Amino acid sequence: MAENANTRILRNLWDHFEGRKWDRAAELLHPDFVADWPHTRERICGRENFIHINRHYPEPWKIEVVRIFGAGNLVVSELAVRHPAGTSFCCSVAEIQEGQIFRATEYWADDDHEVPDWRSQWVERF
Amino acid sequence: MAENANTRILRNLWDHFEGRKWDRAAELLHPDFVADWPHTRERICGRENFIHINRHYPEPWKIEVVRIFGAGNLVVSELAVRHPAGTSFCCSVAEIQEGQIFRATEYWADDDHEVPDWRSQWVERF
Repeated sequence: MAENANTRILRNLWDHFEGRKWDRAAELLHPDFVADWPHTRERICGRENFIHINRHYPEPWKIEVVRIFGAGNLVVSELAVRHPAGTSFCCSVAEIQEGQIFRATEYWADDDHEVPDWRSQWVERF
Repeated sequence: MAENANTRILRNLWDHFEGRKWDRAAELLHPDFVADWPHTRERICGRENFIHINRHYPEPWKIEVVRIFGAGNLVVSELAVRHPAGTSFCCSVAEIQEGQIFRATEYWADDDHEVPDWRSQWVERF
């Protein structure tokens, strides 16, 4: 998948998060940015709140970008965030408007779930 | 986002799942289809195993397609699966090869997580 102007915005966002460059990360977000986190039904309104949360996320953590691709004004980022309790996988679907990230839905999957017995016969683990 | 041949494959897959038309769903999957579910680190190898699991998923459940969009040979499906315990949100990133679904990573976010105290001041609920 080719990088384009929109995918570069998200790649820069994750780079700035990883570098804890919060002011530079904030510049990539629209002032009225809204993020939804379905696993907790949290809605984070405004770029300031979103930066506050990420800045205060308990350390240590490290973001790895697994894949980024764009489709029109949407950009999908697949991430693996390593921390002492394990790995949190994230699929972020972001909407770009006029060069800034306007909206995002971030599907967070912590890797601490057990495999239910009823389906264990049909799966492998990775 | 416009539908195209690839997004239609995924839309048909979810329609067949919702209709419990398992044989028709299987036709959309490559025989060597592999799915990864990061939240449990499950890897499901082969379309037969994938169909078995979905066919045996404890009833009742109902799939709603929130958004589908394509990017080259990738198709992203955002789903809400309603069941008695709540809603499971899914972001599925599927790879199409020669008209069949060859690979998928499905980020499952159950909505039963609590909001940690440290960030509750910065979020709303939806």
